[in-house]
Amino acid sequence: MTRGFPDTEYRARVAAAQTRMAKAGLAALVLTTEPEVRYFSGFLTRFWESPTRPWFLIVPATGDPIAVIPSIGAPVMARTWVRDIRSWRSPDLHDDGISLLIDTLNEVAAGGPIGTPSGHETHMRMPRENVERLSNAVRLTGDQGIMRSLRMVKSEAEIDKIRTACAIAGRAFDRVPEIARAGVPLSQVFRDFQRLCLDEGADWVPYLAGGAGPMGYDDVISPASDTPLAHGDVLMLDTGLVYDGYFCDYDRNFAIGDANPTAKATHARLIDAVEAAMECAKPGATAADLFHAMDRILTGGAGGSDAGRYGHGLGMQLTEWPSLIPDDHTMLEVGMVLTLEPGAATKGGLMLVHEENIVIRAGGPERLSPFSPHDLRVI
Amino acid sequence: MTRGFPDTEYRARVAAAQTRMAKAGLAALVLTTEPEVRYFSGFLTRFWESPTRPWFLIVPATGDPIAVIPSIGAPVMARTWVRDIRSWRSPDLHDDGISLLIDTLNEVAAGGPIGTPSGHETHMRMPRENVERLSNAVRLTGDQGIMRSLRMVKSEAEIDKIRTACAIAGRAFDRVPEIARAGVPLSQVFRDFQRLCLDEGADWVPYLAGGAGPMGYDDVISPASDTPLAHGDVLMLDTGLVYDGYFCDYDRNFAIGDANPTAKATHARLIDAVEAAMECAKPGATAADLFHAMDRILTGGAGGSDAGRYGHGLGMQLTEWPSLIPDDHTMLEVGMVLTLEPGAATKGGLMLVHEENIVIRAGGPERLSPFSPHDLRVI
Repeated sequence: MTRGFPDTEYRARVAAAQTRMAKAGLAALVLTTEPEVRYFSGFLTRFWESPTRPWFLIVPATGDPIAVIPSIGAPVMARTWVRDIRSWRSPDLHDDGISLLIDTLNEVAAGGPIGTPSGHETHMRMPRENVERLSNAVRLTGDQGIMRSLRMVKSEAEIDKIRTACAIAGRAFDRVPEIARAGVPLSQVFRDFQRLCLDEGADWVPYLAGGAGPMGYDDVISPASDTPLAHGDVLMLDTGLVYDGYFCDYDRNFAIGDANPTAKATHARLIDAVEAAMECAKPGATAADLFHAMDRILTGGAGGSDAGRYGHGLGMQLTEWPSLIPDDHTMLEVGMVLTLEPGAATKGGLMLVHEENIVIRAGGPERLSPFSPHDLRVI
Repeated sequence: MTRGFPDTEYRARVAAAQTRMAKAGLAALVLTTEPEVRYFSGFLTRFWESPTRPWFLIVPATGDPIAVIPSIGAPVMARTWVRDIRSWRSPDLHDDGISLLIDTLNEVAAGGPIGTPSGHETHMRMPRENVERLSNAVRLTGDQGIMRSLRMVKSEAEIDKIRTACAIAGRAFDRVPEIARAGVPLSQVFRDFQRLCLDEGADWVPYLAGGAGPMGYDDVISPASDTPLAHGDVLMLDTGLVYDGYFCDYDRNFAIGDANPTAKATHARLIDAVEAAMECAKPGATAADLFHAMDRILTGGAGGSDAGRYGHGLGMQLTEWPSLIPDDHTMLEVGMVLTLEPGAATKGGLMLVHEENIVIRAGGPERLSPFSPHDLRVI
C-alpha cells in the first residue's frame, strides 16, 4: 500500500476547512497539536514525543497552509506538500517561535479573528504564558468545531489506512496462542504481543492495555503486571497500533485453557451488544442511539458503567469524537469511523470489555476489524 | 528489578515540593499532564494516548496529593499510594471534571495562589475555555519553576530505572547485525529494531527515529522510508524505549559493509565531542558549558547547528530540561541525567549525530549507556 496521501487529499481538506472558515468569519486557523498539524500538512514524525519544541500550522482563509516550526523539522516538512515553511532555531528559551507565529498570523489574518480548536478533547500545546501572549497580540477565538467536524468524517484514503491497521492487529490477535498460556507473566504477553504487531506490519504500537482473571479484570487501562496467567483466566488485550499515521483500536478476549460459565455468557452478551449497535449504525442515527442499543442488552437500559462510554471515533488518534454516551447527539454520517466497545460487569467489581471497529456507510456499517464470534476463543 | 517505587519515594517528592511551595507562597499545585501527575502519584498508564479525558492531581501546601480523575482510572489510581481519589464519569460533554477540580481546589487552597507548571516545555492539558474557567474561579499562577527544579534532579531509584532502560537498548543495539544489511528497507529495520527492544525487556518503544546514506542523513526525526539499505550507507537508529515509566534516549551509527573516510572521521569527531563533554560534566558547570565543550570540537566554536542543541535532560520523558545550548545556564547538580548528543555536518546538507546518556556525580559523570568507541561499527 502506498505511504502518505496525494496532495489532492490535503487540498481537499484545506478547501473544506476554508469553506467552513468563510461561514464562521475566521481569517485563519492556528493549530498546535500533532494530529491538527498533520491533518493539513502530512507532517508525520514521532518527535512529538519530546515536549521541548512547539510546532505550529496556520491555515489562512485563502491560500495554502504555512508551517511555523523549529529548523530541526524543516527537512521533514519540506517533504510534504507545504511550501511556505518558516523556521527558527529551537529551543530558544526567550522566544521559542511565539513572535514568529504572531508575525505570521498578523501578516495572514490582518487583524481578523483567528480560530483555534476548542471544546472537548482539545488543548493548546504551548506554555500558558505564550497562550496569553498570543491572545494579547491577535484576535484568538474558538474554531467553532471546524476541526472536529472535518476530522470526524474520514476520506476513503484515510479509511484504507485504518482498515490496514485493523488487519495487522487481526493477524497479531490470531497468533496470541503462540505467546499466551498458563504460567506466562502478563508483562511477557504484553511485550510479545507488541512484537507480533510489529512482525505483522505495524509501524509502531502506541497503545496496549489489558488484564486477566477468571472473572475478567477490574480496569481496562492498566499496563501489565508480572502476575502469571492461570488456567481459567480470561485474558484481554486491547491495542492501538499505527499504520502510516492511522490507528486501529480493538481488543480480544481469550480463555486460558477454559473459562467459567459466567465469563462465557458475558462475552456472548458483549457480542450481542455489538450486533445490536450494528443494526443501528446508519446515517441519521446518533452516537447516543448506539449507546442505548448496546445498553439495553448490557444493563437492561440502566445507563452504562464507570468506563463512561461504549465506543468512540477513531483515526489519527486512538480515540476521537464522538463518544457513544447518552449525551452525545452527534448525527452519524457516511465515512465516520467508530469503535463499538461494550463492557459488562461479571462479579466482585470485575468486568469484560469487547471492541470492534466500523465505518458508517449509506447501506449500513462496514466492518474494519474482523468481528469476533460469540464464543470466547480458548487457548 | 522491582517495579514502581516505595511510598517513601513519593513522600520525599511531595515533601520537597511543599518546601519549595512554602517559600513561593503557593497554597497548592495543580497538575494536568502525564509526567506531572505520575511524578507525585506513580499513576502509570498508556491511556494518556487518548485525548478524550482530563486527569488532574493536586498537591496541597500540606498533606497528601488528591487525584481528581475519571472513574475509568480510579481502580488504577487506587493501586498507587494516593488515598484521596475524587472521580466523575467521563466523558461528560458539559462538565468534564472542571467543576470537581475547582471545588477541590477551593477546599484545599482556601483562596490562596495555585501554581501550575509554566515556562518552557510546559502546557496545560485541558480545553482553552476550561483554563479560562479555572482562572476565573481560583487564583491561578505559575509554579515558579518548582516542577522543573524537582524533576531535573533524579533520585537513585529513578536513575536505576533509566540505567535499566539504557541496558535494554544496549543489548538491542548489539543485535542490529541480525536485522540490518544491504537490501533491507529502512522501514523493515525500524520494525525489527523495535522488536529487538521488546525482546530485550522494553515495556514499550515510544520513540524511534533514524536515517541512512553514504554521508549520513538530512534530518534526525524522520519515520522510516521503504528505501533499502545500500553498501556504504551509514545507518543511524535513535531510540527512546521505556522501562517502568523511564526512558533511555541514545543512538548508534553503523556502517553497512563499509563507510567512506568522511563518515568515519565525522563519527570519530562526534566521539571526541562526547569525551570533551564528559571532562566538563561536573557539578557547578552549566548546560551551556557542555554545549561549548562539544562545539569547540564540532564547529571550532561557531555555535552549533539547526538541530538546536547538543543534548538535554532525560527521565520520565524522552527529553526534559535542561537544553545543552549557549543560552541555558542551568547549573549541573548531582543526580541530573543528561544526554550528550553532538551532531556534525558531512557534505551536501547531510550530517551524523551521536548520543549517549550520563548522570552527574560528585566525582565526575557516570555512564548510563554503554559508550561507543571512535570506530564506526561495520555490519
